[in-house]
Amino acid sequence: MSVETKSKVVLTKNQFGKAENRVVRVYRDTDRHEIRDLNVTSQLRGDFEAAHTDGDNAHVVPTDTQKNTVFAFAKEHGVKSPENFLLNLGDHFTKNFDWVTGGRWAAEEYGWARINDHDHTFYRAAPEIRTAVLVREGDKNTVISGFYDLTVMKSTGSGFKGYPKDKYTTLEETDDRILATDIATRWRYNTTDIDFDATYNKVKEIILTTFTEGHSPSLQQTLYQIGEAVISAVPEIDEIKFSCPNKHHFVSDLSFCGLENPNEVFYAADRPYGLIEATIAREGAASEEEAWVGIAAFI
Amino acid sequence: MSVETKSKVVLTKNQFGKAENRVVRVYRDTDRHEIRDLNVTSQLRGDFEAAHTDGDNAHVVPTDTQKNTVFAFAKEHGVKSPENFLLNLGDHFTKNFDWVTGGRWAAEEYGWARINDHDHTFYRAAPEIRTAVLVREGDKNTVISGFYDLTVMKSTGSGFKGYPKDKYTTLEETDDRILATDIATRWRYNTTDIDFDATYNKVKEIILTTFTEGHSPSLQQTLYQIGEAVISAVPEIDEIKFSCPNKHHFVSDLSFCGLENPNEVFYAADRPYGLIEATIAREGAASEEEAWVGIAAFI
Amino acid sequence: MSVETKSKVVLTKNQFGKAENRVVRVYRDTDRHEIRDLNVTSQLRGDFEAAHTDGDNAHVVPTDTQKNTVFAFAKEHGVKSPENFLLNLGDHFTKNFDWVTGGRWAAEEYGWARINDHDHTFYRAAPEIRTAVLVREGDKNTVISGFYDLTVMKSTGSGFKGYPKDKYTTLEETDDRILATDIATRWRYNTTDIDFDATYNKVKEIILTTFTEGHSPSLQQTLYQIGEAVISAVPEIDEIKFSCPNKHHFVSDLSFCGLENPNEVFYAADRPYGLIEATIAREGAASEEEAWVGIAAFI
Amino acid sequence: MSVETKSKVVLTKNQFGKAENRVVRVYRDTDRHEIRDLNVTSQLRGDFEAAHTDGDNAHVVPTDTQKNTVFAFAKEHGVKSPENFLLNLGDHFTKNFDWVTGGRWAAEEYGWARINDHDHTFYRAAPEIRTAVLVREGDKNTVISGFYDLTVMKSTGSGFKGYPKDKYTTLEETDDRILATDIATRWRYNTTDIDFDATYNKVKEIILTTFTEGHSPSLQQTLYQIGEAVISAVPEIDEIKFSCPNKHHFVSDLSFCGLENPNEVFYAADRPYGLIEATIAREGAASEEEAWVGIAAFI
Repeated sequence: MSVETKSKVVLTKNQFGKAENRVVRVYRDTDRHEIRDLNVTSQLRGDFEAAHTDGDNAHVVPTDTQKNTVFAFAKEHGVKSPENFLLNLGDHFTKNFDWVTGGRWAAEEYGWARINDHDHTFYRAAPEIRTAVLVREGDKNTVISGFYDLTVMKSTGSGFKGYPKDKYTTLEETDDRILATDIATRWRYNTTDIDFDATYNKVKEIILTTFTEGHSPSLQQTLYQIGEAVISAVPEIDEIKFSCPNKHHFVSDLSFCGLENPNEVFYAADRPYGLIEATIAREGAASEEEAWVGIAAFI
Repeated sequence: MSVETKSKVVLTKNQFGKAENRVVRVYRDTDRHEIRDLNVTSQLRGDFEAAHTDGDNAHVVPTDTQKNTVFAFAKEHGVKSPENFLLNLGDHFTKNFDWVTGGRWAAEEYGWARINDHDHTFYRAAPEIRTAVLVREGDKNTVISGFYDLTVMKSTGSGFKGYPKDKYTTLEETDDRILATDIATRWRYNTTDIDFDATYNKVKEIILTTFTEGHSPSLQQTLYQIGEAVISAVPEIDEIKFSCPNKHHFVSDLSFCGLENPNEVFYAADRPYGLIEATIAREGAASEEEAWVGIAAFI
Repeated sequence: MSVETKSKVVLTKNQFGKAENRVVRVYRDTDRHEIRDLNVTSQLRGDFEAAHTDGDNAHVVPTDTQKNTVFAFAKEHGVKSPENFLLNLGDHFTKNFDWVTGGRWAAEEYGWARINDHDHTFYRAAPEIRTAVLVREGDKNTVISGFYDLTVMKSTGSGFKGYPKDKYTTLEETDDRILATDIATRWRYNTTDIDFDATYNKVKEIILTTFTEGHSPSLQQTLYQIGEAVISAVPEIDEIKFSCPNKHHFVSDLSFCGLENPNEVFYAADRPYGLIEATIAREGAASEEEAWVGIAAFI
Repeated sequence: MSVETKSKVVLTKNQFGKAENRVVRVYRDTDRHEIRDLNVTSQLRGDFEAAHTDGDNAHVVPTDTQKNTVFAFAKEHGVKSPENFLLNLGDHFTKNFDWVTGGRWAAEEYGWARINDHDHTFYRAAPEIRTAVLVREGDKNTVISGFYDLTVMKSTGSGFKGYPKDKYTTLEETDDRILATDIATRWRYNTTDIDFDATYNKVKEIILTTFTEGHSPSLQQTLYQIGEAVISAVPEIDEIKFSCPNKHHFVSDLSFCGLENPNEVFYAADRPYGLIEATIAREGAASEEEAWVGIAAFI
C-alpha cells in the first residue's frame, strides 16, 4: 500500500474504556445492611485521533484507570442509583480530562432481597436485569434506563388474525394462543433530576399491569399499549423502546395417538422466534437518535 | 485393523433418548389457569447391543417416539409434579418394551407466578431451576430431586481462618467477608410415595433458613449444616449433595487514592472460584451410588 | 389515563419479523456436496401503525410467512452468498407488499470444511462467525458484512505507555505484554455488485496479516492500521468498524514463592476487560449512519 | 431439631478446591514462542470431616493456595501436556499434606495456531476443546482425556430404519438424512507413561476418519465403530465414552408453495435433540467406574 493510498482513510466514531466492572457496594452503617450490585462499563469519547493514527497515548486515559475510578467512586460517592452513579462518572471524566468531551457509561443492576427479612443475608430475587446508560456529549446528558429478561406469559387472551396471505403463508388464524415474551425495554428520560429508583419501580409496575389487561390481537399492539401507558404516566420519560421475542408456544398435535388437545399441551420453541421492535414517543418531544446509537441492538 | 483386533472390544454402559423436550402444560378447566413448564429428557437403558455392533435397530425405540410420548403424557397423565411425570414415563417404557430394563428420565421445571393475581397472566418468578431425575433399573426406582442457580449472599457473618499454610499460601485470615454462592443441590428420596411439590418447597425453605443462621467459618460447614437440617427434617430423604461455588467478593484495595475500605466496596470475581462439593447422608441408610452416575457432574 | 393523555403518544421507529431461521442448504448435484449453513433474520419496516395502535393486522405479514419465505428461497434462489441471499429477501418483501418500504435482513454463516477431503463429510472448522446485514430503505440497499469471535493473540510485540496519569492511576507502563482480542468487525460496502465470498476472504486475510505485523503501542492503533489496510485494499468498502475487547493477560506475580516470571506465566482474566471501538472510513465517502442503527451494539 | 436427630447424619463423599484457573504459559526461550492455554481445576479429597462438622479448618488447604500452586507450577514445571501438568499437581498435594489422600484435577486446553507461520502471533484455531482429568486415590492415578465441541456432519450416507413402532410413533424410515453431532468424548488410559499430546492427536484423527467412512445406520453404530477403532489402535486406552447429541436437520417441507425438496434445504433444530451415550471398552480390561463419578454428566 502506498502512503498516498493510506492518506485517504479517516478515523470517525470511536470510544474506549473498561467494560463490566463488577462492583458490589455494601452499606453497613447499621446492622441492617443494604447492598447494590452493579456491572459498570465506562467508555470515553473525545480527541483520541493521535492514539489511533500515530500510537501516541498521551490522551489515552487507561482503561485500568477507568476501572479504578469506578471502584473508588463506589466508596467516595456511593450508589444512590445506577443512574446517579453513572452521572458522577460522566462528570468526573469530562471535567478532569480536557480532551474527553463525552462518553457512554452503562450499568446493569442485579436485584437482591432479604431471606426471612434477615439483616445481612440475601438472595438474588429479581428476575429481570435492570439497565442504565448515560450518554454525554459536552454538557448534554441523556439517561436511558430499562431492563431485560423479564419473562411473561398469557396462557390465553391472545390471538392473531386478519393478516395478509400470500403463497408462502401457512399460518392459521387463531383467537386463542399463548403469548409469551422476554420483555427487553429501554426508556429515555428528559431530565436527570428525578428519583431513578422510584421511577424504575413505577415503570416496571405499569409494564406488568398493562401486559395483563385485555385481549392481545398481536404483540405489536400489546407493546404499544404498554408504551402508551408508560409515557402517559411518567412525564419525565419521552420515549420507550421494546425489543421483544414472540416466544412461540405451539399447540402439540396429539392426533397421532387419538388425543384431542384443546390448548392444554404446548411445545415451547427456541428458534426461530418472532422479534417485535417498536418505539413509542411523546408527541412533540425532541428526538435524540444519536444517544441511542450502539445501545444493545435496539432499532 | 484386523478382525481379530476388533473382536476384543465390548459395549458396556449406554443409554439414549430425546433430550430437552420443552413441554408446557396449561390447566384451564376453570378461568383461573394453572401452568407447569418443564424441560424433559428421556433416556432408555437395556439391550441395545445389536444396534451398536450390527446397526440392527429392532430394539431402538426412536428418540422421536420418546419425544411424542412426553407430549402425549402431558395430556394423558398431566403434570402432578415433575417427579410423578417421570415415574409415569419410566413405567411406560419399561413395561411396553421387553428389552428396556431401565433408564434415566429427567426434568427441569421453571417456576411461574401470577402477575397481580391475574387468572391467566404470569411471570417467571422463581430464581432457581428445579430439577428431578428418575433412575430406574428393573423394578427399582430412585428419585433424585433438587435445584440450581439460587444465588445467596451473606454480606457479613462469614470468615475463614485456622487453615494450613505452605510456601504457596498468600491468603490472609479474616473474620469478616462476603460469603456468596449459587446453590446447586440434589437430594435422594428413599420413597416414591410422597408429595413431591410440598417436599420441594419444604427443603428449599430449610436451605434458605439455615443459610441465614449463625456465623459461617467456611462454606463447607455451612453446607454441612444445611444438609444436616434437611436430612433431620425430612425422613423421606436419605442423602443430599451440594456442588457450590465460592463466589469470591474481594475487598477492593482503594489505598492507591487514599481511601479506606472497611468491607464496603467489593470486586465480584468470575474465575477462578472456589468449588465446594459435599454429600450429607442419613447414617445407616443404604448407599445408592449407581443412581448418581452421570448426573450433572456431582461427586 | 384519559383519552386526551393517550392521544399525545406516537409510534416512531419499528420493525418486526422472524429471527434466527436456521437454514442449511446442501448442494448435491454431484457426489461432491457443498453446504451453506445460515442463521437468517428477517425484519420488515413500513406502514405498520394500525397494527400497533388499533390491533389491525391487515399489514402484518406474519413472521411465520417470513420464515417460510426464507426456507423456500433457499431452494428457489439458493445461497450464492449470505449477502446475495439477503438481497433476494429484501427485493421480495418490498416488491410484493406495497406498505413494506424497507427492512433489515441479517445472516450469520458457520464455516465448514471437509474431513479428509471427503465428498459429503464435514466439520465446523471456521473459528469465526461470518455476518451479513442488508438494510433497505425504498430502493436503497446497504450491505454491511463482517465476522466475530476470531480470537487472536500476540505473545509479545505489544506495549502500552505514554498515557496520562491521575490519582486513580496504578497501571505501570510496559514495553512487553500479551495483546489478545476477539475480533468483531463489520464493514460497509458501497455496492451490491461484488463477489461477496471472495471479498470476505480477502478482508479476513488482510485483518489477520495486519494484526501480525509490527509492534503494537495500543489496541487502538492496531485496529486503525487494520482498518486502513482494508479500506486501502478494497475500493468497494467505505467504512469498517471494530468492537474488540482487550482480553487482559496479567503477568502472574510469583514472588510469593521466590519465582521470577519474565512474562512466561499469565492469568487470563474474564472481567473487566478493555473495550475498544473504532470506525475507519474512506475519506470523502458518504456517511450512512442510519444503516448502522441497532446493529449489534457497535458505536 | 434435637441433638439426637442431628447425630444421625454423616458426611460421605466430598471434595473442594479452586475451579477454572485460567493459566497461559508462554515459552519464549527463542524468538519463536510456543503457548499452552489451560483452564485448570484442582479439587482435594481426604480427611476434611472436622471442617464440615466442626468448622475446624486445620486441614482445609485454601482454594486460594491451590490457585497459587497452579500458577507457580506453570513456571516451575511448565506444561509438557495438560495431563502431565495435572500429574504434577496431584503428586504435590498428596505428598505435602498427609490428610490429602487424593483428588480430582482437571484441565481444558484451547488450541492455538500461528498466523502466517509468525513467531509470536496466533489465532485460536482448534474447533474442539481438549479435556484432561486426573483422579488420584492413594497411589493410584487414573487419567481420562478427551475433547468436546467438535461439530461434524454427513450431508448424506446416513439413514435410520428397522426400529420398533408403537402408538406414539410418527417417524418415517429413511435411507438418506443428514447426520450431525457435536462430538464429546473421554477416554481412559491404562498408564500415565505415554506421550499424551501425540496420543491425543492420534485419537482425534481416528475419530474424524472413522466418522467419514461408510454408511451410518444410526449414531449408535457410528459411535461404536469409532470407539472400536480407537481401542484397537491405541493399546494404552482401555475405555472410551461418548455423549453426543443427534443434531436434527429436518427436511423443510416446501410443498406449501409447490416446491420439491429432495434433501436440499434443511431446518437445523435446537431442542429437543437426540442424545446418544455409549461406552466402548477393551475386553477383559479392569473397570474403573469410581474414577468416572461426577465427570461432566457422562453415563
